[in-house]
Amino acid sequence: MRRPVLEFWYELASTYSYLSALRIEGLADEAGVDVRWRPFLLGPIFSAQGWNSSPFNLYPAKGRYMWRDMERETAALGLPFRRPNPFPQNSLAAARVAVYGIDHPWGTTFAKAVYHAEFGEGRSIAEPAAVHAILVRLGLDADAILKVAAAEPNKTRLKALTEEARSRGVFGAPTFFTEDGEMFWGNDRLTQALAWASGERVAGAR
Amino acid sequence: MRRPVLEFWYELASTYSYLSALRIEGLADEAGVDVRWRPFLLGPIFSAQGWNSSPFNLYPAKGRYMWRDMERETAALGLPFRRPNPFPQNSLAAARVAVYGIDHPWGTTFAKAVYHAEFGEGRSIAEPAAVHAILVRLGLDADAILKVAAAEPNKTRLKALTEEARSRGVFGAPTFFTEDGEMFWGNDRLTQALAWASGERVAGAR
Repeated sequence: MRRPVLEFWYELASTYSYLSALRIEGLADEAGVDVRWRPFLLGPIFSAQGWNSSPFNLYPAKGRYMWRDMERETAALGLPFRRPNPFPQNSLAAARVAVYGIDHPWGTTFAKAVYHAEFGEGRSIAEPAAVHAILVRLGLDADAILKVAAAEPNKTRLKALTEEARSRGVFGAPTFFTEDGEMFWGNDRLTQALAWASGERVAGAR
Repeated sequence: MRRPVLEFWYELASTYSYLSALRIEGLADEAGVDVRWRPFLLGPIFSAQGWNSSPFNLYPAKGRYMWRDMERETAALGLPFRRPNPFPQNSLAAARVAVYGIDHPWGTTFAKAVYHAEFGEGRSIAEPAAVHAILVRLGLDADAILKVAAAEPNKTRLKALTEEARSRGVFGAPTFFTEDGEMFWGNDRLTQALAWASGERVAGAR
């Protein structure tokens, strides 16, 4: 029997997407759900609503809280955590590779490696050289992948994914969609999204 | 032995504060924690960061999502839910009564009754007459309470509470503080806040 599918829309510069990316596979497996990873860019969506940076930078109280919350959440999940500088990182080069990776078995591994470098080790992921190094560490043909990722068809595909996210109501990351069109926003909704995808129509109270 | 205390900062116009207000007492009791209810106004805090309404109105995609999320969350918790019109409700008159209620045993009962009328039944809580009716239904001396609530010392106290919230980093509601100064934002953090207050320094992963 075909397993239900949950779409996982992630932005590689997003702190809370890191938390979901590093645990969604195990949780989805327990729930009997397949995950469809969908990279996109939050920048154009934030711009369209008048923000020229992350809300965590525009609203300092919210930003200070987020960093403390991330410390607590990563500790609870047993994940390493180090803040990259600057935040947010420019995720364009990495997102293009992740888009190309949608059709390849290394796609999700690459995304997790980016998050680990960026938020587990606090390293820059902004330069093509940083993305190149991550691909090399994964044993992949970095030169060939970066070339296709930077070509027009793949760039257009990232733009189309971002526009698809916006048109479906995405305003932050991570965001999850079930096959019957339910949208769940935030790492805090991951288990509810999986429960919904697997057929529980009312996600249990936590 | 003295029980640990969790401060519960709530805004009577806030949807997610409704969810916390209607369940915090039971959960706190299980956790062996005392709750200190602290009403305040989000309006001045939003104004200070350039917002003239709720972010759920200023950012329509976020607002549409919130209403759907509230439907799901209230269903999961077995709480009634009806959207008041307009949203947000002007909560000034009710907040003043809640401030006066801090020192009276009916304070938390009143706050819960306001939330139930506003989000359980979708009724207006904005007019003093609406607040008066809620007090009468609780068997309280509505005229006397409204008089003290509208007097200068009590109005000043609400302003001071709001300024205290802002100066301690509050940017939304509900917000929880433990005695050792940890801040938790949002109904989604209620159980973690209680766990932290009761002595668990790393709240378990959900």
